[in-house]
Amino acid sequence: MRLRLMEATVDCLVELGWSGTTTTVVSKRAGVSRGAQLHHFPTKQDLVVAAVGHLTERRRDDMRQAAADLPEAGRTRAVLEILSAQFVSPVFFAALELWVAARTDAELRESVAPLERRVGRETHAYALELLGVDESRGHNREVIQATLDLLRGLGLAASLSDDAKRRSVVLDSWAIILDQQLELA
Amino acid sequence: MRLRLMEATVDCLVELGWSGTTTTVVSKRAGVSRGAQLHHFPTKQDLVVAAVGHLTERRRDDMRQAAADLPEAGRTRAVLEILSAQFVSPVFFAALELWVAARTDAELRESVAPLERRVGRETHAYALELLGVDESRGHNREVIQATLDLLRGLGLAASLSDDAKRRSVVLDSWAIILDQQLELA
Repeated sequence: MRLRLMEATVDCLVELGWSGTTTTVVSKRAGVSRGAQLHHFPTKQDLVVAAVGHLTERRRDDMRQAAADLPEAGRTRAVLEILSAQFVSPVFFAALELWVAARTDAELRESVAPLERRVGRETHAYALELLGVDESRGHNREVIQATLDLLRGLGLAASLSDDAKRRSVVLDSWAIILDQQLELA
Repeated sequence: MRLRLMEATVDCLVELGWSGTTTTVVSKRAGVSRGAQLHHFPTKQDLVVAAVGHLTERRRDDMRQAAADLPEAGRTRAVLEILSAQFVSPVFFAALELWVAARTDAELRESVAPLERRVGRETHAYALELLGVDESRGHNREVIQATLDLLRGLGLAASLSDDAKRRSVVLDSWAIILDQQLELA
């Protein structure tokens, strides 16, 4: 029931945005009584922060499976594709709603900031792992950070219009740059 | 009076976010009568789209002045600083509110999408100019696009917490990479 509520929350955020996502709408969509919803998540804030956190983690599990079949040739470009998919996914657009709402809501920011830091750290570690990179060498650390900032920027661009073609061309170039810049062990 | 309304709109978006920005609040803050406001901007959508568009352009004029004093040594890093400032400015955060609201509002998206395309094209052209780059050479075009996507991603990160230090380190590395990657005429 918790999971159903969290999934309905992300769906609502993606379709209706922050202000359209009310606990009433979510309960109805999840087919869960208002009392049960209040029992699991007393406030909208609890619900949304838990939902975005949990589904981001589940999405990372999906990515791990995709990463099991990475090719030898063109591996860097394939890794960028996997990482990029995270930033154009429904969960990213839901997180974007939460993130932007938190900018002007100090109480919400209190719970969103730690979530974002955790997700950021985990994604960074995951990128290092997929690319087989030691971040203490050269400027690897900054190059990986730049890569994730780039993917976040591409995700924001994708939120308004479908620019998959443009994104693909940018990532082709970025993969070449990464192969030149990353110092491998 | 138009300008005062537009400036008050951006201030409201930055402080109160999309849902807190009502035409009533804006009129009051601008010290403009409701009638006059309705005369200049019949709807919230008219007002916000005009305000973000106009103030983005004015901000670009400020950038042009900053760019007049670019140093010979370390020019690329200095250009990144000027461009980056645009993506962590109040106008960017106002635009972010508009952008995210437009994701789930088809009518709003109709007017925001052309604005974003225009601003995107202009910023791209401006980056080429400041860096003295011909985009038909090598993969210059993609590298400049990636730079602007990176700056957008850094701007989104800055919207939630002040990460100026991290941003500065990432841009230091990126300036070195740009100097290696851009093919100059």
